[in-house]
Amino acid sequence: MPLLEPGSRRAAIDDTALLAALVRTEAAWLRALAANGLIKHEQVPSATLEAIPVRLRDEDVEATGNPVTALVDQLRAGINDPDVASMLHVGLTSQDTLDTALMLIARDALDQVTSALAATAGALATLADEHRRSVMAGRTLTQYAVPVTFGLKAAQWLVGVLDAADAVTAVRRGLPVQCGGAAGTLSRAADLVADPMQLVAAFAQELGLARPDLPWHTRRTPVLRLADALGETLAALGVLASDILLLGRPEIAEVREMPTEGNGRSSTLPHKQNPVLAVLVRGAALQAPQLVAQLHLSAALAVDERPDGAWHAEWPALQRLLSLAVVASSQAAELIPSLYVDTAAMSRRVAEAADELLAERRRDEPGPPSSYLGAADAFVEAALRRFFDTSGDER
Amino acid sequence: MPLLEPGSRRAAIDDTALLAALVRTEAAWLRALAANGLIKHEQVPSATLEAIPVRLRDEDVEATGNPVTALVDQLRAGINDPDVASMLHVGLTSQDTLDTALMLIARDALDQVTSALAATAGALATLADEHRRSVMAGRTLTQYAVPVTFGLKAAQWLVGVLDAADAVTAVRRGLPVQCGGAAGTLSRAADLVADPMQLVAAFAQELGLARPDLPWHTRRTPVLRLADALGETLAALGVLASDILLLGRPEIAEVREMPTEGNGRSSTLPHKQNPVLAVLVRGAALQAPQLVAQLHLSAALAVDERPDGAWHAEWPALQRLLSLAVVASSQAAELIPSLYVDTAAMSRRVAEAADELLAERRRDEPGPPSSYLGAADAFVEAALRRFFDTSGDER
Amino acid sequence: MPLLEPGSRRAAIDDTALLAALVRTEAAWLRALAANGLIKHEQVPSATLEAIPVRLRDEDVEATGNPVTALVDQLRAGINDPDVASMLHVGLTSQDTLDTALMLIARDALDQVTSALAATAGALATLADEHRRSVMAGRTLTQYAVPVTFGLKAAQWLVGVLDAADAVTAVRRGLPVQCGGAAGTLSRAADLVADPMQLVAAFAQELGLARPDLPWHTRRTPVLRLADALGETLAALGVLASDILLLGRPEIAEVREMPTEGNGRSSTLPHKQNPVLAVLVRGAALQAPQLVAQLHLSAALAVDERPDGAWHAEWPALQRLLSLAVVASSQAAELIPSLYVDTAAMSRRVAEAADELLAERRRDEPGPPSSYLGAADAFVEAALRRFFDTSGDER
Amino acid sequence: MPLLEPGSRRAAIDDTALLAALVRTEAAWLRALAANGLIKHEQVPSATLEAIPVRLRDEDVEATGNPVTALVDQLRAGINDPDVASMLHVGLTSQDTLDTALMLIARDALDQVTSALAATAGALATLADEHRRSVMAGRTLTQYAVPVTFGLKAAQWLVGVLDAADAVTAVRRGLPVQCGGAAGTLSRAADLVADPMQLVAAFAQELGLARPDLPWHTRRTPVLRLADALGETLAALGVLASDILLLGRPEIAEVREMPTEGNGRSSTLPHKQNPVLAVLVRGAALQAPQLVAQLHLSAALAVDERPDGAWHAEWPALQRLLSLAVVASSQAAELIPSLYVDTAAMSRRVAEAADELLAERRRDEPGPPSSYLGAADAFVEAALRRFFDTSGDER
Repeated sequence: MPLLEPGSRRAAIDDTALLAALVRTEAAWLRALAANGLIKHEQVPSATLEAIPVRLRDEDVEATGNPVTALVDQLRAGINDPDVASMLHVGLTSQDTLDTALMLIARDALDQVTSALAATAGALATLADEHRRSVMAGRTLTQYAVPVTFGLKAAQWLVGVLDAADAVTAVRRGLPVQCGGAAGTLSRAADLVADPMQLVAAFAQELGLARPDLPWHTRRTPVLRLADALGETLAALGVLASDILLLGRPEIAEVREMPTEGNGRSSTLPHKQNPVLAVLVRGAALQAPQLVAQLHLSAALAVDERPDGAWHAEWPALQRLLSLAVVASSQAAELIPSLYVDTAAMSRRVAEAADELLAERRRDEPGPPSSYLGAADAFVEAALRRFFDTSGDER
Repeated sequence: MPLLEPGSRRAAIDDTALLAALVRTEAAWLRALAANGLIKHEQVPSATLEAIPVRLRDEDVEATGNPVTALVDQLRAGINDPDVASMLHVGLTSQDTLDTALMLIARDALDQVTSALAATAGALATLADEHRRSVMAGRTLTQYAVPVTFGLKAAQWLVGVLDAADAVTAVRRGLPVQCGGAAGTLSRAADLVADPMQLVAAFAQELGLARPDLPWHTRRTPVLRLADALGETLAALGVLASDILLLGRPEIAEVREMPTEGNGRSSTLPHKQNPVLAVLVRGAALQAPQLVAQLHLSAALAVDERPDGAWHAEWPALQRLLSLAVVASSQAAELIPSLYVDTAAMSRRVAEAADELLAERRRDEPGPPSSYLGAADAFVEAALRRFFDTSGDER
Repeated sequence: MPLLEPGSRRAAIDDTALLAALVRTEAAWLRALAANGLIKHEQVPSATLEAIPVRLRDEDVEATGNPVTALVDQLRAGINDPDVASMLHVGLTSQDTLDTALMLIARDALDQVTSALAATAGALATLADEHRRSVMAGRTLTQYAVPVTFGLKAAQWLVGVLDAADAVTAVRRGLPVQCGGAAGTLSRAADLVADPMQLVAAFAQELGLARPDLPWHTRRTPVLRLADALGETLAALGVLASDILLLGRPEIAEVREMPTEGNGRSSTLPHKQNPVLAVLVRGAALQAPQLVAQLHLSAALAVDERPDGAWHAEWPALQRLLSLAVVASSQAAELIPSLYVDTAAMSRRVAEAADELLAERRRDEPGPPSSYLGAADAFVEAALRRFFDTSGDER
Repeated sequence: MPLLEPGSRRAAIDDTALLAALVRTEAAWLRALAANGLIKHEQVPSATLEAIPVRLRDEDVEATGNPVTALVDQLRAGINDPDVASMLHVGLTSQDTLDTALMLIARDALDQVTSALAATAGALATLADEHRRSVMAGRTLTQYAVPVTFGLKAAQWLVGVLDAADAVTAVRRGLPVQCGGAAGTLSRAADLVADPMQLVAAFAQELGLARPDLPWHTRRTPVLRLADALGETLAALGVLASDILLLGRPEIAEVREMPTEGNGRSSTLPHKQNPVLAVLVRGAALQAPQLVAQLHLSAALAVDERPDGAWHAEWPALQRLLSLAVVASSQAAELIPSLYVDTAAMSRRVAEAADELLAERRRDEPGPPSSYLGAADAFVEAALRRFFDTSGDER
């Protein structure tokens, strides 16, 4: 329901993408069969399946509980060569096709997330470096603590983003095909070829996905780790968005989301500028935990050789989580470079609150807040070092 | 993403429905303004707004963070009469429009749920009555306990459904308009009319929704209670679906979902009949708790006069929860009448397991399991009494 | 783990309370048996069971999966009269005892919550009334909107608390005994007496709990509704705590939690005063949604005549949720009267931000912000009317 | 509330453990100060702090919102040497102490989990190897699919456990100290020594925890990854427990939890043997997702230099999740070796259901189900290879 998911069209994790991924999966399997001599190669031109018009009706999907059976029917009907048509999907089960297609979608989403996180990290590194000496009030439990720098704050956001990017990269690398046949034994595939593992290998290679040691129909580690990495991403983005929203309150006004043309308009207040990107990113971060929980729950209930509902409960949560991560990371990549950092406001506040900010210090004559920054700069340096080490950017 | 939400098109809780509800809300407000003399009545023909072509682009929605501002712009541009155009949305805030529109959608959804639950309850009452003497094994912690009847099991499902229907009815009755203006004071409306409460009353009356004592921009009781009633509905349906799935396992085979034409087909196993409806209902029930949690979380974080993300995080969860409840209740209404109850299988099992089923009994000569049913029939009677008292059906 | 649950000892929802409730439940059942002629009344002095020393070892609880079996063993061993000993627990199942004991604990908790919410509501009504004319900035999406009054803000908090109190009262009234025997048929009880329903009625009467029409071993409506009411309570408290934390930020400083002796001390910052109560209440509110989700999930998975894990997963969540609600409501009842409302700060801010606060107004010569409060006072009045109508307090 | 958390005492993740870890943390910091010349080494005998009697009252914990301030007060009062007393906790903030203590507890818990998972994996490897040829019905969506082997089922459980063990090991390795002082700058520490990083390094070394590049007061990556690994563990255990419960239903009876003395007794049914361990493990797995969600949520809301409630909301969830993982993994390590695998029952069922199990096969003369196992054995081999490669066990 894109109207209630602002920005979601840029993620394009929708039925069109899913349908394309499902078709691509079936096509890859056909080519894997061909590579193993089960169909003649010239019979499987790469564009065949993609060109077949498919229209899946909701009632057909509901009738079988997932979109694969109806899709396979329509694809078969659309293939001219009866030899090829009869081999379509043979050896796969619907979960193989759907899980694999979702991994393809996940890969595209993770690539978008990775690149958005890299852009965000770059912008944060710039902020961290530029504001090493921008002293501001530290705040704990909402009250003034000791002074910090805005550079340190940006550095902490940066490390959060780098942590998330690491997690995303690790998961991205391992995204596997699903390939087990009706009950995870490759039963039918093994009747077709001597070594069905070669079919799995060819299938994985066709799609550029990892080849798992065993099917994971009911061992949802790949989905769990995907969920966790996306959750970590949205948590990191949630922190920076929430901080920006706090610092951008008009009474604080130390950091502001600078609106682009038309952004942040209110339906009733003509001059108001809402921090729309930060609000949307924070809104996304507030949704991720429950979606992560959904995927953990489904994993814990994955019984038998295919579970009776837990798998189905995974799909919308995974789709939403991927979409939110793509959208929120791309919004963050737009938000961070647009920040206006009001160092004068920071300085004024630090001067006003100097007594409280220095209350911890045990000296007869404490210097100014800027002399009580501890290791703030060293921490900024550590964050930047990590960024430059991993980003390939030059300092 | 309907392909991953089988059956969701029958709920039709989608962007088309939302857009219609948003327009209907703005139209009702116009009429409320007219009823209070702010526009001439003849200027507000009921069909005006509905006829204006509107197309909301994702980037416009994202730019303001919700679909209302862009919608109001397009509607204004489409209204011929400049007096009317200038009054459109005046006095409302975007949250008024969106919250109210979501209540309209909720009402339609609850009506669908109510009628599906009534059908389900009717079918369950029939089962409960017919199977008062169908003795079957009681099972606790997966193992045989004492005998029960299938009538009692159906009666328990029935009472669960009646409980849920009560909750839905109570919530349905109280669904309120949202009407507070920019910060919940009716500031602008009070500049237009002497008593802005009359505008609220007219607005509520136009839409047939309740008039709340105060706006609920940040006091999300209506959303919470809606969430809880939908959660209760899906929990009740989850229990019966899960029980049916267990009893329909081939090794137990006491109750079976009877497939209709084409339903339950496997993509690879030709003769297999999957209990698709029960699986989908159970899958829905496994998703509800996280969606309920989302709405509780958003309610707990509804700060200021409009929160910075918590409100946005509500929308997709509410939409999904409404959709799941409509779809799952309608699937249950199809599932229950289709059940095949194999009383012979129940009897055979009871005979085989008689020793275990009667182990509790302390008698020298215990009778057959059918003599150890305790108050089972009285409980069935209690459930049926409640059903007939509330349903208006005749026995 | 009370060290990580500050304030939890005041709720006293702990093993001591549970053990007492379990014993009380078994004692009530004994008296119900006596009332139905199964034991001689003089054999069941009310203090019998309570005086028996019981010590449940974790390994015994683990061995049977719940504390009831070990408890019954120890109680039996401690009863002198063999006739009574042999009748102890007869006709009940362990779920009857544990569910009923948890309802007793819930009742005590809800009574504490009710009285704390009443105190909170009283303090909020005072604030709402006193601050009808305390103009302050309205804030939406973190930015200035139109002016509001602190009276209206307090009134909104008040209505949230009254909504929650209504929900708690409704649930409190219906808390039922659990009484179904081994598989929900009263099998054994029906062998003891002609009408086992009379045993249920006597049991309920002994404990002052409601008599359910049917057992609810797997139809968890009572637990769900309890969860929802507690969730609603914590959401309402979360909103006011979060608002207070925002308004108490030193840069805003319009409302402050006034520390009592020793409260809010920092381990390192000597002069810092943390808003500890508001932080703890908000922290509780952030935990409720997941606990509510847990109880919804367990309800949805309550299969067979007793489920294989879902019931067990309920217990800690229910205990935590009850404890959090008692503690947070009692903290709120302490917090609200302790608030320092700095109306001068509010006025200064309103004056500074007048242009933004009046931007919506379409007048040639707008008056001051205090002239643009719309229906704020009418809403305060509506809230107070509801409070006085229901509280029995006099104005 | 241990009575509602059967087996939790074996985890011993309780207030006693927490208090010990808090004291140990403060002691390590004292030694780090000594190592940097701030206290004389002979003044800091290792046993000093541990010997001081400490009793934290709930009201003191509540007054400051966490247990550290009261603890530091009592420890200071108990230290004889005023020089040492005055240096206790100097440079730390309460979050440093509590976060670090929780990491110590997490480490102990992960060690217990690791060893329990290793034992579980060993037992599963044995089952997988022994039952390579134990043909049984594959089941998808509750219905018969193609044949599988029990060896493959055990192999899939094994790989799930190995995945979880990998995740736990990775997290265990990186558990960091928390060390940032009042607002994450090491402000006070930097006034004490030239290079406060050396204090952090000494602190980490004292405790054997990792030294983080930056404090993580509001960047909760370590907690998130801990949560995710524990969630993965409980999901893997949930699958095997749920499968065992299904296969142990009396109508299926292919695998059974063999009760040890006294285990599984019912409070009312004398001969019943409940699969208590499997039920408890499944019950734990049903709780993990919500606890994981709690920790993701807290991470997403970690604003400022210390958040106003999100941190507090972490504690009970983390404690419960650690405890559940320890208990459930240890129960699984007891459960798996106790399984009785009834291969005769499996064979009978396969024979009865041969038509359905072979329906997929497209051959004129299909062989018996045992000839249609596809790559089942190869998958078992792959799982065992991974087990022996990583466990160090010999084949």
